[in-house]
Amino acid sequence: MTENYRWLHKWGFKDTTFVVNSDKSLTMTGNRYKLAGYKITKLLPYFEEQLKVKIDFNLSQAENENKIVLSANKNIPFCEEVSQLFNDNQYSFVDEDRLQHSHGQTSAEEVYKVLYYQLDRTVDMVFYSESENDVKTLIEIATKYNVCLIPYGGGTNVSCALKLPSNEARMIVAVDMGRMNRIEWVDKENLRACVQAGITGVQLEEELKKQGFTCGHEPDSMELSTLGGWIATNASGMKKNRYGNIEQIVENMTMVTPSGILEQTQPLSRVSMGMQPQNLLFGSEGNLGIITKAVIKIHPLPQVQEYNSVIFPNFEQGLKFLNQLSQTGTVPASVRLVDNKQFRFAQALKPQVKGIKALLNKLTEFYIFKIRGLNAQTMVAATLVFEGSQQEVAYQKATINSLAKQNQGLIAGGKNGRVGYMLTFAIAYIRDLLFNFHILGETFETTVPWSQIQQLCNSVEVAIEEEHKKHNLPGKPYLSYRITQLYHTSVCIYFTHAMYAKGIDNPENVLSKIEHSLREIIIKNGGSISHHHGVGKLRSSFMKEMISSTSIDLLKKMKHGIDPSNIFGVKNNVFDS
Amino acid sequence: MTENYRWLHKWGFKDTTFVVNSDKSLTMTGNRYKLAGYKITKLLPYFEEQLKVKIDFNLSQAENENKIVLSANKNIPFCEEVSQLFNDNQYSFVDEDRLQHSHGQTSAEEVYKVLYYQLDRTVDMVFYSESENDVKTLIEIATKYNVCLIPYGGGTNVSCALKLPSNEARMIVAVDMGRMNRIEWVDKENLRACVQAGITGVQLEEELKKQGFTCGHEPDSMELSTLGGWIATNASGMKKNRYGNIEQIVENMTMVTPSGILEQTQPLSRVSMGMQPQNLLFGSEGNLGIITKAVIKIHPLPQVQEYNSVIFPNFEQGLKFLNQLSQTGTVPASVRLVDNKQFRFAQALKPQVKGIKALLNKLTEFYIFKIRGLNAQTMVAATLVFEGSQQEVAYQKATINSLAKQNQGLIAGGKNGRVGYMLTFAIAYIRDLLFNFHILGETFETTVPWSQIQQLCNSVEVAIEEEHKKHNLPGKPYLSYRITQLYHTSVCIYFTHAMYAKGIDNPENVLSKIEHSLREIIIKNGGSISHHHGVGKLRSSFMKEMISSTSIDLLKKMKHGIDPSNIFGVKNNVFDS
Repeated sequence: MTENYRWLHKWGFKDTTFVVNSDKSLTMTGNRYKLAGYKITKLLPYFEEQLKVKIDFNLSQAENENKIVLSANKNIPFCEEVSQLFNDNQYSFVDEDRLQHSHGQTSAEEVYKVLYYQLDRTVDMVFYSESENDVKTLIEIATKYNVCLIPYGGGTNVSCALKLPSNEARMIVAVDMGRMNRIEWVDKENLRACVQAGITGVQLEEELKKQGFTCGHEPDSMELSTLGGWIATNASGMKKNRYGNIEQIVENMTMVTPSGILEQTQPLSRVSMGMQPQNLLFGSEGNLGIITKAVIKIHPLPQVQEYNSVIFPNFEQGLKFLNQLSQTGTVPASVRLVDNKQFRFAQALKPQVKGIKALLNKLTEFYIFKIRGLNAQTMVAATLVFEGSQQEVAYQKATINSLAKQNQGLIAGGKNGRVGYMLTFAIAYIRDLLFNFHILGETFETTVPWSQIQQLCNSVEVAIEEEHKKHNLPGKPYLSYRITQLYHTSVCIYFTHAMYAKGIDNPENVLSKIEHSLREIIIKNGGSISHHHGVGKLRSSFMKEMISSTSIDLLKKMKHGIDPSNIFGVKNNVFDS
Repeated sequence: MTENYRWLHKWGFKDTTFVVNSDKSLTMTGNRYKLAGYKITKLLPYFEEQLKVKIDFNLSQAENENKIVLSANKNIPFCEEVSQLFNDNQYSFVDEDRLQHSHGQTSAEEVYKVLYYQLDRTVDMVFYSESENDVKTLIEIATKYNVCLIPYGGGTNVSCALKLPSNEARMIVAVDMGRMNRIEWVDKENLRACVQAGITGVQLEEELKKQGFTCGHEPDSMELSTLGGWIATNASGMKKNRYGNIEQIVENMTMVTPSGILEQTQPLSRVSMGMQPQNLLFGSEGNLGIITKAVIKIHPLPQVQEYNSVIFPNFEQGLKFLNQLSQTGTVPASVRLVDNKQFRFAQALKPQVKGIKALLNKLTEFYIFKIRGLNAQTMVAATLVFEGSQQEVAYQKATINSLAKQNQGLIAGGKNGRVGYMLTFAIAYIRDLLFNFHILGETFETTVPWSQIQQLCNSVEVAIEEEHKKHNLPGKPYLSYRITQLYHTSVCIYFTHAMYAKGIDNPENVLSKIEHSLREIIIKNGGSISHHHGVGKLRSSFMKEMISSTSIDLLKKMKHGIDPSNIFGVKNNVFDS
């Protein structure tokens, strides 16, 4: 039953993993990513240097092969009715399927646990929905027999939104939406498409491309995550400057709830029609019902797609560039600024080259360091993606060139820009590689006003050192960050944290505690609870600091009104109590 | 108590009105608008031609001077507590004040009635709030004594949102927010300002300008309407392409409700924090509580502000231009396309000129009609406002020039563009002028997908002829429209309708009925219930066609949760039953 092209618990596709060669270099398998096939010699040394530890290859830990899966807690009359109403291949009690659908991709509390320990709770059935009617029927019988339903999209959530409430006594059914992955219609004239919620980002783009269109929503997870998941998480895409974040892309959606269907009659681009319940569904995190389809904006494929990158002497200078750019009204589709550590990380992933290429690299280095006087320990890079008409892209490039010059920026070309942008998809696999060597990592993000960026980053840096000491962890903590989104009043900062935890008991709990402390520091320094990962269960304790108590009451009353028996009992966000 | 610079019931400021000269030409009084001071000779003939009637100046009808105001329905213990807790100048039982606060600006059901007949219900007290604490206290005692509160901003609503429910037996208090009109703080670094909800658009812009900033929100009503009203109505501004509509401008707001305060702790530009109750408050139409303040985005004053206009041979060609422009990613701050009737209306407002100017006009006409071959009966015009850096505006102008050329457009210059843009503010007074001559008019707007624009406009044109016949109205109906906003998938169309109703009983009811029928036609042809005027009571009967019944239930449950005693009993939108 389980789709066998994906790893059951780790990130990504089965054709892709990092293998350790006999010379301790790495090779990415398969040919899915540009990174695949060649020897990566500098990556592990990079982490050894950063973490100030020596990786012991003899002590690598292997994934738990015989995973404990609790037996299914079956609600017999419900199961009987399911078997009467649906085809056999629409539901599964198989341990492997159930375990796969019992977690998301949160490092500490989900993936590390399922790989090396065990989960506290497993779903009791996986249901594969094939139509909106299936969803309606399932919700009806779940309500009839008081069964808990958990919508399951791409399984890529990183806020413990898919983590099962351990105190849920009812039968739990994961509702896998992956078979509802079709585009129902395309309206070329008005640039809209109606799409089923289970489609992944890559499937959506492939299908639209055949007709000459793009949606342009590119979250880092787009190979696996789904339209329904994007709405439920209030997702953001890398090219949001051109295509918008998910709440700007969706013009209508259909959510089936225990009380009926929440939807507009027509997709609407902009209206004044009173309070719009649709706006509440963004970020609903599985608490209200199942999103079955949405009408989204589409765009003709852009005439031009170009990449570029700019190197700055330090992060401060890069920030100035971003701030000025954000005021121009002509921001390229994607603009990101990586810190020095991430810049060097990208260098560490580059293949070894010989001959003329090596010579050219030497010459480039000579120019960068000797002539331009950049410092390898402080320099940072912005990667840019331009999309649009030739005219539009030319204008954006002229703006970039002029602002780069004003900010001591060195245009580093499209190849570096493209590599930087594309790395996003490949590096997600590194987390699971590093687990083998007792290195645990996590990413977390926030929105923060422009004036507080530097202070927030510095505070997180100080705090992580303190936490590291407090938990007696070996070596040094790894912390790196990038600015991934620009807004008028603020930016999104995306942090990557890693720690070496050899010899530490329950290192995943330590990682969780550290992340929680860092979120406190982030909020104290003016950062938001999350820019696009969401709240789930990981950050639910912070909600009372985010919105007024009356706002929380309002959400609870609304949830109770829509789902009085708490069929959607996933307990994310303010419903986690 | 009543601010004496505004007309009590008619649109606008007391210094401004149209007077009919002895030669039957018109002159606008005062010097507030460019239109003021000179003889307008062609406007009444324009309407006579359009309506196919002869205005009888002897039969002009005068505003009812002794208006009937029902005596105040006082809840004595409430009134006593108000008098103990607040200063004398914070509340009024004066008839004039109460009547002024008992209606908005909807032509038929509000303004015409108050001027020539009487209103069914009058508020029983006007309360002038001076602080958020005042609002809290007032809501507490209103709840204690079961008094109905109606938030009152600029009084410019045109959806009967301020119309009082005739079956409301409780004492009704209008809460005038006009004294809460200060900017509380400006954060220049992060481009945010915290502003009290009672500030008008013009006050806001004047105050921000002193510090070098603009908000850029320019609804047609900006001289009178308020920040709180914009949020409650989900307003749109003419320059939304640069500054956004109200939901993109506001980053936090505070609403005091009978259950407490709805707000975020911090202003947030973009977050994933679960369902955001804040998003529901846009379009809340007075049904939930009182908006006291908001944090809004601000922008440095633009380097350049320029106007321009383009003439097209016909509406279809103008539409093509707009559609292509909407795809360029570089749309000027404001773009509007008026139909031929509105184009000629603007010509009819021009002053008579003599000498060299008249000669130049003749030469222009010769060029337009003889050389370019444009037809005066079909030509249309787009007016454009550019704002931004010199570079940005230059780039936008180049785009416009190139697209105009492709679409047989003739660049008609900044003067015409500026006049077209500014006319918006002055022409609002024409409605009340025409009332004198038994001409009743109303505006209404919708959002409609690109492909359905022409069909929708044609259907409304056909329907209005039929309605006109059905109601045995003299002459011909007047219908004119313009495109006022461009979106990726649709546009906003803004219609102006007028009818001659001499000799017709209760002509305001006929106008209401016609408007209702036209809204049906609009919805049947793919138009939305409203783009920015809102639903209020005027369009509430259409809500069940707009969102699913479960969505309506959700809103009702939420309202009940927040305001269980229905203190905010204004009964707009889905609460109108």
